[in-house]
Amino acid sequence: MTLLVSVGEWSVPHWVEAFRRALPGRSVVDAADAFRPDAIRYVAAWQPVRGSLARLPNLRAIFSLGAGVDHLMGDPDLPDLPVVRVATDDLTRRMSEWVVLHCLAILRQYDRYGRQQAVGVWEDDRDQPAAAEVRVGIMGIGVLGQDAALKLRTMGFDVAGWGRSAKSVPGLPVFAGAAGLDAFLARTDILVALLPLTPETRGLLNAALFRRLARDGRLGGPFLLNAGRGGLQVEADVVAALVDGALKGAVLDVFETEPLPENSALWTAPNLTITPHNAAMSAPDATARYIGEQIARMEAGLPPENVVDRHAGY
Amino acid sequence: MTLLVSVGEWSVPHWVEAFRRALPGRSVVDAADAFRPDAIRYVAAWQPVRGSLARLPNLRAIFSLGAGVDHLMGDPDLPDLPVVRVATDDLTRRMSEWVVLHCLAILRQYDRYGRQQAVGVWEDDRDQPAAAEVRVGIMGIGVLGQDAALKLRTMGFDVAGWGRSAKSVPGLPVFAGAAGLDAFLARTDILVALLPLTPETRGLLNAALFRRLARDGRLGGPFLLNAGRGGLQVEADVVAALVDGALKGAVLDVFETEPLPENSALWTAPNLTITPHNAAMSAPDATARYIGEQIARMEAGLPPENVVDRHAGY
Repeated sequence: MTLLVSVGEWSVPHWVEAFRRALPGRSVVDAADAFRPDAIRYVAAWQPVRGSLARLPNLRAIFSLGAGVDHLMGDPDLPDLPVVRVATDDLTRRMSEWVVLHCLAILRQYDRYGRQQAVGVWEDDRDQPAAAEVRVGIMGIGVLGQDAALKLRTMGFDVAGWGRSAKSVPGLPVFAGAAGLDAFLARTDILVALLPLTPETRGLLNAALFRRLARDGRLGGPFLLNAGRGGLQVEADVVAALVDGALKGAVLDVFETEPLPENSALWTAPNLTITPHNAAMSAPDATARYIGEQIARMEAGLPPENVVDRHAGY
Repeated sequence: MTLLVSVGEWSVPHWVEAFRRALPGRSVVDAADAFRPDAIRYVAAWQPVRGSLARLPNLRAIFSLGAGVDHLMGDPDLPDLPVVRVATDDLTRRMSEWVVLHCLAILRQYDRYGRQQAVGVWEDDRDQPAAAEVRVGIMGIGVLGQDAALKLRTMGFDVAGWGRSAKSVPGLPVFAGAAGLDAFLARTDILVALLPLTPETRGLLNAALFRRLARDGRLGGPFLLNAGRGGLQVEADVVAALVDGALKGAVLDVFETEPLPENSALWTAPNLTITPHNAAMSAPDATARYIGEQIARMEAGLPPENVVDRHAGY
């Protein structure tokens, strides 16, 4: 027996089927099946029951079913084994689709024309900024951030990145660490958060940060896009900033609590677009193939790729 | 005296100012000014009064203020002089912004999530197609079509082009002429019309053509985008196709009559997005600089670039 698919306490037949297709001849079970704990060599997990992974004595690696691993890192009993992030081209491309879509929708005032159409108004805008006049700042400049940056640049935007530590990305100005944050925010009209959730990044997107964003840009005020993790943002601050104009608009795919609770003030905040945590959903087949490749590497004596730095938390 | 800026019967001071900035030391007048007809060497025109250009005995060239020239070609008294299209990078980039924005909005169901948000519904889509599974077909594969194709491909879409005559574009399958149209339409989930309006293309986007589009794609039916000219489309057919499902959706930037009349059935057609002919507006400064460069070429004894083929009509 090989792989346990563990998604909370739920049975997830579509994921199990994808793994059976990707790992022909191997045994794949899910948390609702009867299985011997000592038979499990690998776990593909999303929000597993806390402490459950520590009860698998022969486990060799833990695969996250998504790009984020904060759902695993919060478990104090997490075994000291390689934790592997999903890094499929499919997931990367979908995230960039979401980022480019929403940056273009802001630039080209998609919602404004929708509102005009609803009331039969024909009115253009004689002073549309060009993409080159709009500065996008990407926080989190790993695989996802770099792909989004490249595609935004292809569309003509003026793009820069910010990361925890210095990094050289061809053609992309990258600001680093606390020392670089002020200059980065001061040149940012659209802030795109693609950061992992760690103790350092929790609550980073707050009122104080919003006040440091550019206010001299062609969009008439700064915009926030968050497709990283809900815990990055202080939602009360986002609502207040949208109301008082510190933010001209926001697009959020992730939330402190998901699904977003019915009584959240975000549902009715002005100039806010909500997507239901689907900016970049892990496609079961592409994810299962990727994890199958990593298992094959390990069984050939190689280390898996995209292993999480347990100290950094991502 | 050099350049007449002629936009219908209107005085257009912002255009005149842009030309004065681009042509320092030259005389620039508009149609509302008093001027001697024999002093005019060049005209920068948009929908000029019919026959008015024939009354300028020393005219050397006619510059269109937009990418399309059908507003000039309809004049039976159009002088036999070079007609020059605007082909600025600025205009090309803006058109590609519009095309990529609306293709991504379809792929990622922007409007669906907007409707869900309005009623507080959190519901994702477990079976989102990847961009690579969606076939975009671009009709009109000149400068604008090629740039849009390249950018759509960067975003991951499966792109092909169609043109009146065979053309080789690196990496892009191009179908040609009447003979290639069936195969092109049969592999198209999102049809993007960027054609010029000529006697051959008028009314091309009609019920018979919509029925030839792919119906086996991942979007559940074909979509139409038109940012070429309103005369390309038969609007009654577009409305009928949206109602009966021959088209799953459409995005129109151009219309048979503009502004779109209050009583047009398009305002309330289902699954239709309307933008007010602003997919790619000519920015006065970029356009004036471009025309200034073409005048400089002519005065140096060179032919202007992007001269219209009077026989083809574009």
